[in-house]
Amino acid sequence: MKAEIISVGTELLLGSTINTDAADVAVLLSEYGIDVYWQTVVGDNPGRLMEAVRRAKGRADLIITTGGLGPTCDDLTKSALAEAFGMKLELNAGEEAWLREIWKKRGNRELTPNNLQQVWLPEGSTALRNDWGTAPGCYFERDGVRVIMLPGPPRELRPLLEYRVRPILAELSNAVIASHNIHFFGIGESEMEYRLRDYMQELNNPTLAPYAKSGECLVRVTAKAATQEEAEEMMAPVIERVKGMFGALVYAVDGLNLAEHTVKLLVEKGVTVAAAESCTGGELEKRITDIPGASAALKGGVVVYTNEAKHLLLGIPMETIDKYGAVSREVAAELAERVRRKLGSDLGVGVTGLAGPDGDGVHEVGTVFISLSDGRRTWVREKHLTSRDRATVRLYACQNAFDMLRRYLAGLPVEQERTDI
Amino acid sequence: MKAEIISVGTELLLGSTINTDAADVAVLLSEYGIDVYWQTVVGDNPGRLMEAVRRAKGRADLIITTGGLGPTCDDLTKSALAEAFGMKLELNAGEEAWLREIWKKRGNRELTPNNLQQVWLPEGSTALRNDWGTAPGCYFERDGVRVIMLPGPPRELRPLLEYRVRPILAELSNAVIASHNIHFFGIGESEMEYRLRDYMQELNNPTLAPYAKSGECLVRVTAKAATQEEAEEMMAPVIERVKGMFGALVYAVDGLNLAEHTVKLLVEKGVTVAAAESCTGGELEKRITDIPGASAALKGGVVVYTNEAKHLLLGIPMETIDKYGAVSREVAAELAERVRRKLGSDLGVGVTGLAGPDGDGVHEVGTVFISLSDGRRTWVREKHLTSRDRATVRLYACQNAFDMLRRYLAGLPVEQERTDI
Repeated sequence: MKAEIISVGTELLLGSTINTDAADVAVLLSEYGIDVYWQTVVGDNPGRLMEAVRRAKGRADLIITTGGLGPTCDDLTKSALAEAFGMKLELNAGEEAWLREIWKKRGNRELTPNNLQQVWLPEGSTALRNDWGTAPGCYFERDGVRVIMLPGPPRELRPLLEYRVRPILAELSNAVIASHNIHFFGIGESEMEYRLRDYMQELNNPTLAPYAKSGECLVRVTAKAATQEEAEEMMAPVIERVKGMFGALVYAVDGLNLAEHTVKLLVEKGVTVAAAESCTGGELEKRITDIPGASAALKGGVVVYTNEAKHLLLGIPMETIDKYGAVSREVAAELAERVRRKLGSDLGVGVTGLAGPDGDGVHEVGTVFISLSDGRRTWVREKHLTSRDRATVRLYACQNAFDMLRRYLAGLPVEQERTDI
Repeated sequence: MKAEIISVGTELLLGSTINTDAADVAVLLSEYGIDVYWQTVVGDNPGRLMEAVRRAKGRADLIITTGGLGPTCDDLTKSALAEAFGMKLELNAGEEAWLREIWKKRGNRELTPNNLQQVWLPEGSTALRNDWGTAPGCYFERDGVRVIMLPGPPRELRPLLEYRVRPILAELSNAVIASHNIHFFGIGESEMEYRLRDYMQELNNPTLAPYAKSGECLVRVTAKAATQEEAEEMMAPVIERVKGMFGALVYAVDGLNLAEHTVKLLVEKGVTVAAAESCTGGELEKRITDIPGASAALKGGVVVYTNEAKHLLLGIPMETIDKYGAVSREVAAELAERVRRKLGSDLGVGVTGLAGPDGDGVHEVGTVFISLSDGRRTWVREKHLTSRDRATVRLYACQNAFDMLRRYLAGLPVEQERTDI
């Protein structure tokens, strides 16, 4: 089954509203394995909307529209769709009664003619009751094409998708679609894709799709089958093969992001951590405490952005800093070891580096040392995240700290060879 | 001039990515008065992309595409556009040299063939250097239609729009568009818009447009005129009137965001600060150190996420915490005062509160105390950011800390009456 999404609204063409509706509709359709090849956005313009509908009618089995249903838009979408399919609009008695009831409940405002317009629907169509607004959606089939019209405001659209559209799609689709995400850290998207390319081309169902996001990568495995069990059986060997290809670079299947995964591991294992941050300046601790319940994992930490602070808060001797420099393997090790002792946590992590854009005359911008100490042993990763902007250097520094923690907790080698990720 | 936006990416059709790119492009086009009647989204499919391009070619003067340029997508967009316009792809020597330089700087990884594909552009087109990624955009004119191709990742697209596309649009359009932003903190968008409504309706050119973003608001004043000078003359009285209407709620005109504005003030005045964060867990310091050069302003700080850490790192007596509770005016004051003394900074700021989603059985989620101390006096703001999620509570806590600092530095009253912002 092929679907097409048409979004109606001048505010979308002006960019003053971001088209989240199309994404919400698309996610639901893809869950049911319904292909979407086209999304079109038109303004509040009957001619262009009709043109879009006529084109969609010729190439799709299902058309979903969003927007243009409310009392302020003169019934634009319903009129255009009705005309494109050669239908009349008729007053839907059930929806009219419901709307009058709503109006009564809200006080004694008059039902204006444009408010009543909302319950005129293409003849014979099924109203999709809008309990989260006033403009009902509707659903009809004509000329072998199914049409679903939905209101534009996301707070109305989302529940309508869940409670009105989902049951329709469940009935229409015969296939089950299932997917799993394989999460990676320590490899770039292009290299991952390069190493997977042959295998990806060999596969047809399930399929593999690589994604990169916020300093980590994932590969989505998706299968289409008659039953959930069958889909799972098809995916299992593919997941194993990808895991085998990438080893410790895979940190989870269907996991959370790397930060959430690591914090969850810490909490599950009852391991506490403390952090000492120089160049990340609080970002690592911020990323830990973004996660509800992180107080069970993070005892606390320090932001030792200046050399003075390194000395005042952690007692790192000024001579150590003078001798090796603040951006050094030695100071990184001191950060992790001393913050661990200071806060009495199981583990300590430290970050020191040069996030840029200004250099220090000694190191290249992007040089970062990330450290982990458990009181017996201290590991330090040295990274050269050159040609990357400040925010990215800081993000990767945090991601490396999480990667060292999750490897430590999983009993994997904490070291990692690459210095550019 | 009529423009059309074509977004390329299967992730958009699947709904896994929201199409913010189309909105960003549309906003820029509307600034230059360029009409957009159609936006189309297609997947990573050459045939359908070509179909969309051929249709756009017949009805638009300017086509802007986003996506499908990176090393993982086989040069989809450039190949399709070149074919649709009967052009060949050629290796752009300037971009190739630049890409090789980048690769050299990043270490000695091989330039894979799919990486090099990025710098093959339609013959005779102008490369739009991508200093924020590796896939250059490009611009050409053919058959009376102008085409601009841009990469999909928003962190690359946005600077390319600003620094590469804006100059092209400025040349294409004959009018000068100038605008100024008036920045607010301490008022909600809807209230701001309500208070401005009459004045907005009275104005035609310049226009006023309110925006809300990341816990602050701004009003954009935009004028269209023959020259920059004329536009400035038209805007000046409007800016003065808005500033007069909102007093100390306006923190800057054409400023940076509130964090950047505050850090700049600190650096300019040579005032140092130290921070002690409980519920914000490093976010305040992260937001300070996001800003290059922040080391001149932030001496350092502590993340005292647990009561133990408050005691161990700052020496706050456990009896104080037991008596008043960690979420209290008294503990907030201690945080600011003690971290200031500990690090020897001019000012200390503290944050303690309940970001949620779990409560502590005493306070409502969203209760936050933010403190500022200069060694002589300590101010504490009490906020009840109820019905807001964890991330928003933490954001507003940070914004209040910045607001207290900027008011202190500007000689304005540090207090603010509202407890819900």
